[in-house]
Amino acid sequence: MPDKASILLAHGSSDPNWLAPFDQLVLQIRDQLHQERVELAYMELADPSLEHSIRQLADQGYRHIDVLPLFFAAGRHLRKDVPAMLDKLQQQLASSGKQLTLELHQPIGLEPEMASAISQVVVRKLS
Amino acid sequence: MPDKASILLAHGSSDPNWLAPFDQLVLQIRDQLHQERVELAYMELADPSLEHSIRQLADQGYRHIDVLPLFFAAGRHLRKDVPAMLDKLQQQLASSGKQLTLELHQPIGLEPEMASAISQVVVRKLS
Repeated sequence: MPDKASILLAHGSSDPNWLAPFDQLVLQIRDQLHQERVELAYMELADPSLEHSIRQLADQGYRHIDVLPLFFAAGRHLRKDVPAMLDKLQQQLASSGKQLTLELHQPIGLEPEMASAISQVVVRKLS
Repeated sequence: MPDKASILLAHGSSDPNWLAPFDQLVLQIRDQLHQERVELAYMELADPSLEHSIRQLADQGYRHIDVLPLFFAAGRHLRKDVPAMLDKLQQQLASSGKQLTLELHQPIGLEPEMASAISQVVVRKLS
């Protein structure tokens, strides 16, 4: 079994209409990344939480987890709360014998493909 | 003067780190859409607000305003709060002699270019 898994982290909402497109997206991505385990988790207001997903993957033997935020930009959540939570969780898991690498990536909104897609949509819709 | 303008609506944050990429984005989009007036506004926690931007464009003579949400998905804000605010504002402006068309588009996250860009980023970063 490969020991590497990924979590796509979305903000979350109490509104199921908000959540639905993310389910579609993760299906599409799993299709293209079939060699990897890819999960979807939420920062707040929806399940599963990031912590729950990481613990579950750790229990299943995964030892390197990439966390990729589906956010446009990084505010307090991604710059403070999430790194602090990941540090604490990594220590807790290590003390129960699970040495994990948790790699928090920058939000996808900061990647060039996203700026380009946003511009394309705006130009198409407003031209 | 053309009577059509556009507002890119982002969520907003009290964190300037979160806001910065949107400023970059609007510059890039203005460059590609030079025939149109394009503004950036925020739903909450940052200025200018959507209402402020619309009133300003209305005062300047614009009579058709496209509002394009830079959101991944539509939750309560975009399905209830924003349409209610736009209706009320449109009535207020009409009663002061400014007949505006305010067109609220679906969030850009639901457009195919975005799903495709997100998949590309995920595959590139996690492969």
